[in-house]
Amino acid sequence: MAREITGFSNPIVKRVRSLRDKKHRRAEGRFLAEGLRILTEALDAGVTPEMLWHSPESANHPLVVRLTEATEAAGGEVVVTHPDILSKLSGKDNPGSVLGVYHERLVPLDQVDRSTADIWIVAQALRDPGNLGTMLRTGDAVGAGGLILIDDCTDPFSVEAVRASMGAIFTQSVSVASWADFVTWLRGGPGQLVGTSLNTDVDYQAVKYTAPTFILVGNEAQGLPADYEAECDLLVKMPMLGKADSLNAAVATAVMAYEVINQKRRSPA
Amino acid sequence: MAREITGFSNPIVKRVRSLRDKKHRRAEGRFLAEGLRILTEALDAGVTPEMLWHSPESANHPLVVRLTEATEAAGGEVVVTHPDILSKLSGKDNPGSVLGVYHERLVPLDQVDRSTADIWIVAQALRDPGNLGTMLRTGDAVGAGGLILIDDCTDPFSVEAVRASMGAIFTQSVSVASWADFVTWLRGGPGQLVGTSLNTDVDYQAVKYTAPTFILVGNEAQGLPADYEAECDLLVKMPMLGKADSLNAAVATAVMAYEVINQKRRSPA
Repeated sequence: MAREITGFSNPIVKRVRSLRDKKHRRAEGRFLAEGLRILTEALDAGVTPEMLWHSPESANHPLVVRLTEATEAAGGEVVVTHPDILSKLSGKDNPGSVLGVYHERLVPLDQVDRSTADIWIVAQALRDPGNLGTMLRTGDAVGAGGLILIDDCTDPFSVEAVRASMGAIFTQSVSVASWADFVTWLRGGPGQLVGTSLNTDVDYQAVKYTAPTFILVGNEAQGLPADYEAECDLLVKMPMLGKADSLNAAVATAVMAYEVINQKRRSPA
Repeated sequence: MAREITGFSNPIVKRVRSLRDKKHRRAEGRFLAEGLRILTEALDAGVTPEMLWHSPESANHPLVVRLTEATEAAGGEVVVTHPDILSKLSGKDNPGSVLGVYHERLVPLDQVDRSTADIWIVAQALRDPGNLGTMLRTGDAVGAGGLILIDDCTDPFSVEAVRASMGAIFTQSVSVASWADFVTWLRGGPGQLVGTSLNTDVDYQAVKYTAPTFILVGNEAQGLPADYEAECDLLVKMPMLGKADSLNAAVATAVMAYEVINQKRRSPA
């Protein structure tokens, strides 16, 4: 049975809104996702929210009905509230008609099964939540297994990252590891570590990628540290025909990932 | 001779800060760019700021010296101010050490010379300034001629778009046009209009691109209108191997643009 909340000062409103801050997300182990498209993507991936918020106006939308039923069947709570409170929770003037509170789930590296996918994306010291979310979205598109975050990256569960992921936060595995732990884990099994770098003349189309390929992309401003590059099995670069010397990190990841799957499409294993 | 400004209430501080708003940018015909990397990129492209702001601490940095000399030689003004005012102007806690005020320059379509490049990027109803700036940056990387903005796009001269362009706002031509005017201009000369779309089964690697290729990308949420797709010479899509049905708009543009230049690298004209 849906519960109705209409007061801005309701403690649950304050608590859910606090999930917009990383500190509170970590303390609660929960995060926010918003919009019918993303919540439906989550449901299709078998993930229901612990708490589903929607406005009275959207109650009869078929997807909202589906989300409501699934949330209640899984023991979650459904809250009906007015659009102003949804705006306050989402921080957007025009929020989607639904908002969900989800459990954060990080996959420890030793539980990552690299054999399940041909591509894995590894990001180092990534700062921009839009880039992180876009990498998850691209990862889903190219059939990657997941995203491994090295060093101090922006939070994958921020509202901005979740939004940019367009639901891929629910379909890609996300792991956080130190560089040392990642290298130890990587070398404990098959895997080709490919770094994108300015410090090479190797064209990204001139080499052969072997699965599983781990695409390593560095910090937006600094790129990869020299010792990280030294660990790579391959360093490659994309042609740069203009004045700039680099691509946006999420763009570079996507151009690399499509080359890997295009090679595989030409000569299937 | 550099002028010193130390007061937050100085009318010039207020006027420059107002350029963070689109309304004031349009009224003044000027925009802000910040950071040594982007201002140096502008200088290398032959563009000097009308007004250059830097802190006393950065006065002896070789690039700041170069920017100062070039700005003064071109009749611009150099202002020395403290980091707090730079922060206020840039809206960032840690501003770059320099900030420039530049003239907005849009290139009317009838002054665009399509023969100067093999790739042109055309964006329709683009909403996200980060995506717009990233498309400019990608355009520079692939040797595109410029970006043509159709319908109501986000402002290419916003602080966020300029920042994401990493200086490409100074090296790529930027035009704004209605769809009708764009189509009339396009069909007045050679050009292959290629739309990325979900409404096709044509693989983006299965077709031959001919220069100049106009890559058309639609709004982030809606994609291209049906009649825009009908006007395209080709509709193509990238393989999507996961749950999602689309890529981020700037990512899709880049994956397309690299396919176009990769085809050209394999069989040069």
